[in-house]
Amino acid sequence: MKNIKNDLNKKLLHQNNSADLKTITQLKICQKTAQNFAELENGIAVLSDLYHNKSYVYSGKIADELNIFKKNQMQELESIWEEELFDKLNNEDVLQKYLLELQFFQFIKTVPIHERRDFCVISRLRFKDNTTNKSLLHKMFYFSNEHEDIELALCLYNFDFSQAFHYEGKIINTANGNVMQQNEAGNFSFLSSREKEILKMLQKGKQSKEIASLLFISKNTVSRHRQNILEKMKVNNTAEACTLAVKLKWI
Amino acid sequence: MKNIKNDLNKKLLHQNNSADLKTITQLKICQKTAQNFAELENGIAVLSDLYHNKSYVYSGKIADELNIFKKNQMQELESIWEEELFDKLNNEDVLQKYLLELQFFQFIKTVPIHERRDFCVISRLRFKDNTTNKSLLHKMFYFSNEHEDIELALCLYNFDFSQAFHYEGKIINTANGNVMQQNEAGNFSFLSSREKEILKMLQKGKQSKEIASLLFISKNTVSRHRQNILEKMKVNNTAEACTLAVKLKWI
Repeated sequence: MKNIKNDLNKKLLHQNNSADLKTITQLKICQKTAQNFAELENGIAVLSDLYHNKSYVYSGKIADELNIFKKNQMQELESIWEEELFDKLNNEDVLQKYLLELQFFQFIKTVPIHERRDFCVISRLRFKDNTTNKSLLHKMFYFSNEHEDIELALCLYNFDFSQAFHYEGKIINTANGNVMQQNEAGNFSFLSSREKEILKMLQKGKQSKEIASLLFISKNTVSRHRQNILEKMKVNNTAEACTLAVKLKWI
Repeated sequence: MKNIKNDLNKKLLHQNNSADLKTITQLKICQKTAQNFAELENGIAVLSDLYHNKSYVYSGKIADELNIFKKNQMQELESIWEEELFDKLNNEDVLQKYLLELQFFQFIKTVPIHERRDFCVISRLRFKDNTTNKSLLHKMFYFSNEHEDIELALCLYNFDFSQAFHYEGKIINTANGNVMQQNEAGNFSFLSSREKEILKMLQKGKQSKEIASLLFISKNTVSRHRQNILEKMKVNNTAEACTLAVKLKWI
């Protein structure tokens, strides 16, 4: 779990950021939204400022029920991780949540900036001591700045009353109700199967010429595929693409 | 369906109300909450002012998707009913929603005022032309004024992603995750089975003395039960209790 968390840390905390006026306004708006959620739904809202590596926690009555984030209504954390809450939750579900967030982080960068707010991640989190059969519903939204960096993450937690059976998280489009398609391995496939095939070969150290010959395609076609992979994954080189694809369990 | 709606109308729109400063402040806060929800979740938030019989509709992108509440972001309706949305929904589900709201209205009056905000009603609403299998999640909160009258109702609608099978709505406690218990008939039973037994006899025109003899209890005990029924149901007389209990399908 630590590896995936470190990877998320690296991705989230090392972007270009500028604390301009627009950024501060966005922070204020998101804080208000977080506070509203905690008050109306009795839930916990964690707004993480990825630039300053800190979080603002707004807690409704659910926090008292779980015996966390005590003392006051709003609390600042010097981290983007709400450990106090995660400690109460089923480890497996938290790991799945991290993996899904990593996928979401990659995915959302492929979405035009004005459409990013239409997508969010939802997952269900069981408690560590699952005596009551209750679970939490988790929803996460990202907010980008004008440089297209993701600078704020808003996590909302409340009791889940859906009584559904499945615990797999998903990426959803709140505007049209679509659930992003996952492949058999349970991952979001924004690489085609041909692109994955080529990435797998690259990961095994094969050269473009070798791949072209194995797949009965021209070397130019292989190069075009490589270029598309880098663009789709928003990475700078093939090595980076391979490392990330392995972590995301795409290959 | 019209009967139940009329009954809700009667209950909701004929309370003691006073447009004092506290009321106006609460309206402003709720409007902001409604707006926040529509923006963050792309959903539709309908804030109904029961005193003035009007509603404020805040719509996110989901409204465009459903082709309703067009033109602008906020819209005022001269009614507490968002018909434009209901027209898109499965009639049976809308009827169930009305019935549940009537039960919720009765139930919430039995809750101390400072705990009322911990409860809400949730239901799932299928679309009339159910070609996509998508459905809406509906959540409703009531806000009371200092005279303990319910003066605002906030209805939130967004796409339901839970993929649960059951469509029955429920009354939930958002603070502790409890679902209010329903009896076999699917109704919230805040009358005991003995109280229901007596109410059923009263409805059939039996006198207290007759009931006492049939149940082998004293006439005083019957009177005490009758008093408890009126208090629990927040009604003024037995006739009113009978009419409402029939509508709520308690007896």
